[in-house]
Amino acid sequence: MSKEAVRSRFTSVFPQLVEELKEILVSYKMPQEAIDWFVKNLDYNTPGGKLNRGLSVVDTYCILNKTTPTELSDEEYLKVSLLGWCVELLQAYFLVADDMMDQSKTRRGQPCWYLNEGVGNIAINDSFMLEGAIYILLKKHFRADKYYVDLLDLFHEVTFQTELGQLLDLVTADEYVVDLDKFSLEKHSFIVIFKTAYYSFYLPVALAMFMSGINSDEDLKQVRDVLIPLGEYFQVQDDFLDCFGTPEQIGKIGTDIKDNKCSWVVNQALLHATKEQRKILDDNYGKKDDASEQVCKDLFKELGIEKIYNDYEESVVGTLREKIEKIDESRGLKKEVLTSFLNKVYKRSK
Amino acid sequence: MSKEAVRSRFTSVFPQLVEELKEILVSYKMPQEAIDWFVKNLDYNTPGGKLNRGLSVVDTYCILNKTTPTELSDEEYLKVSLLGWCVELLQAYFLVADDMMDQSKTRRGQPCWYLNEGVGNIAINDSFMLEGAIYILLKKHFRADKYYVDLLDLFHEVTFQTELGQLLDLVTADEYVVDLDKFSLEKHSFIVIFKTAYYSFYLPVALAMFMSGINSDEDLKQVRDVLIPLGEYFQVQDDFLDCFGTPEQIGKIGTDIKDNKCSWVVNQALLHATKEQRKILDDNYGKKDDASEQVCKDLFKELGIEKIYNDYEESVVGTLREKIEKIDESRGLKKEVLTSFLNKVYKRSK
Ligand SMILES: [Mg+2]
Ligand SMILES: [Mg+2]
Ligand SMILES: [Mg+2]
Ligand SMILES: [Mg+2]
Ligand SMILES: [Mg+2]
Ligand SMILES: [Mg+2]
Repeated sequence: MSKEAVRSRFTSVFPQLVEELKEILVSYKMPQEAIDWFVKNLDYNTPGGKLNRGLSVVDTYCILNKTTPTELSDEEYLKVSLLGWCVELLQAYFLVADDMMDQSKTRRGQPCWYLNEGVGNIAINDSFMLEGAIYILLKKHFRADKYYVDLLDLFHEVTFQTELGQLLDLVTADEYVVDLDKFSLEKHSFIVIFKTAYYSFYLPVALAMFMSGINSDEDLKQVRDVLIPLGEYFQVQDDFLDCFGTPEQIGKIGTDIKDNKCSWVVNQALLHATKEQRKILDDNYGKKDDASEQVCKDLFKELGIEKIYNDYEESVVGTLREKIEKIDESRGLKKEVLTSFLNKVYKRSK
Repeated sequence: MSKEAVRSRFTSVFPQLVEELKEILVSYKMPQEAIDWFVKNLDYNTPGGKLNRGLSVVDTYCILNKTTPTELSDEEYLKVSLLGWCVELLQAYFLVADDMMDQSKTRRGQPCWYLNEGVGNIAINDSFMLEGAIYILLKKHFRADKYYVDLLDLFHEVTFQTELGQLLDLVTADEYVVDLDKFSLEKHSFIVIFKTAYYSFYLPVALAMFMSGINSDEDLKQVRDVLIPLGEYFQVQDDFLDCFGTPEQIGKIGTDIKDNKCSWVVNQALLHATKEQRKILDDNYGKKDDASEQVCKDLFKELGIEKIYNDYEESVVGTLREKIEKIDESRGLKKEVLTSFLNKVYKRSK
């Protein structure tokens, strides 16, 4: 079963979900222009990314149920992939809004949604509707299942956690007002865990667990205790590569330094800098020119951030492997769910 | 029991809810600046309106349970008023976003939230968090009740309906691009029902019904069949008064004509206008000057909109009274719930 086959079965479900959502509006006798708008909103903003989060719901479910994405019956596949698409819808909701708040220009190789002709601030309501779509789909397909209310609680909780992370990110790092005193490794860790780790790592696994009937607080805690630090490590790696990776490696040109991002790299630098080095950072971090950016990069090299990163990586991966080794599988949870995630992330940096 | 006592018991609950929400952030060890921001967001945007929607949850519950807002025990009052505050939070979520989309300047006598120093587009995430607060509060106080999942489904459904109404409103009426061909009474009706009636009229009553154990589809349909047309009539009245009411009567100066609003008044005018009169509307509706506004108002008078409104009002109120008379009270629903709503709205225009 090839990676492409797995991905293509997943993407083939999306048009059906759009059709179901569209039918709701049709049943309300909604005017055509609004139906067309909603469908365009869904199509423009939901697929088109890497779909890692959505696919990992399916992967996890397959591991827990000792099957493969191609072996699942159509009925079962529809439900589990729908949960995956709900994670992608949640991400679309966040990204449409995040791009407005960050005044970004492009996303996934196309103009940000709000920059499309005639959209503008209507994108705020469009982001709401992307979130709303999640609950329509869940109700339609899971209302009769006894874990339906668990799915709702989980989406609510993770959504709020992500919004909290976004809030802290927004009040910590203004792209144009540079104040490195606002940064700290502790804040970085908090932002990353709340803004990314819960919805990208914990949510997909917890959804697959509920659908598999593995729903005890102990098992949810076991996976959270691995996936949250793993999500944090994933973002630290992302920050590291933004500065130290080659464009070929990361598929884009890093801009965290110029964007005044509260990244792991600058936080490590702040931790180890002398007074003089701190002055250099104050004068150059968050500046929009190449020369200032280079000064920062040189300083990061001088401070040995690469070694600090490599030590961090080995240490966190070691700790995670130990934790996974101790996982209690007696209620049906499988260590393989977590090793599979870890291996995807660990490999990525090589 | 005075109106003030009823209102003051309701408002006295809000600080406790803010405290509970704050505690969640504290338990996450969220940095103080983000906690302060969230509390300010809640305090600035949630109370301060007329609180009609929130209060009507309590009123309805009291009618259904043959009691009064002052007689309820603290425990019972907390739960029912919390549902009322959740309606107010939902409204706050919509209003914060609506003001950004409409580029409004003031709301409830103070600057719109997004116009506050340092807020700007962060208000998008703040609106998300107002919505998120609903589900935190519901979970904390209702998770153990068998109607918990009904509350969640109801909030999801009504939220999506309101977003749909907002979408149609946004794609129909651009404040600056006047095209009366986009308007129609049918569209007006749709916008009003979805954008206002569901969350302002149906939601509070349905919440009180669930908490009272009156939850059959028949009973929900019975109240919906009255409350949705009533909500539509409420908005028609609002549109009428915006144009024909005195500032003393409505407490503000109407701006629907200058704002190019798809109001009931202009839709009636479009329906009855000759070609020549339509030309006058095309030339003057949505213009920002007093003279053009006066031309429209004179034309509305000439077309007899006042008589059309009065006929509409008497007809809809008559129909609603008949419908209420036929309500089946056998499962515990009370006609008084609906007459109480109707009398509040009918009186308002006198
Ligand atoms: Mg961004
Ligand atoms: Mg951002
Ligand atoms: Mg990055
Ligand atoms: Mg508005
Ligand atoms: Mg508006
Ligand atoms: Mg009005």
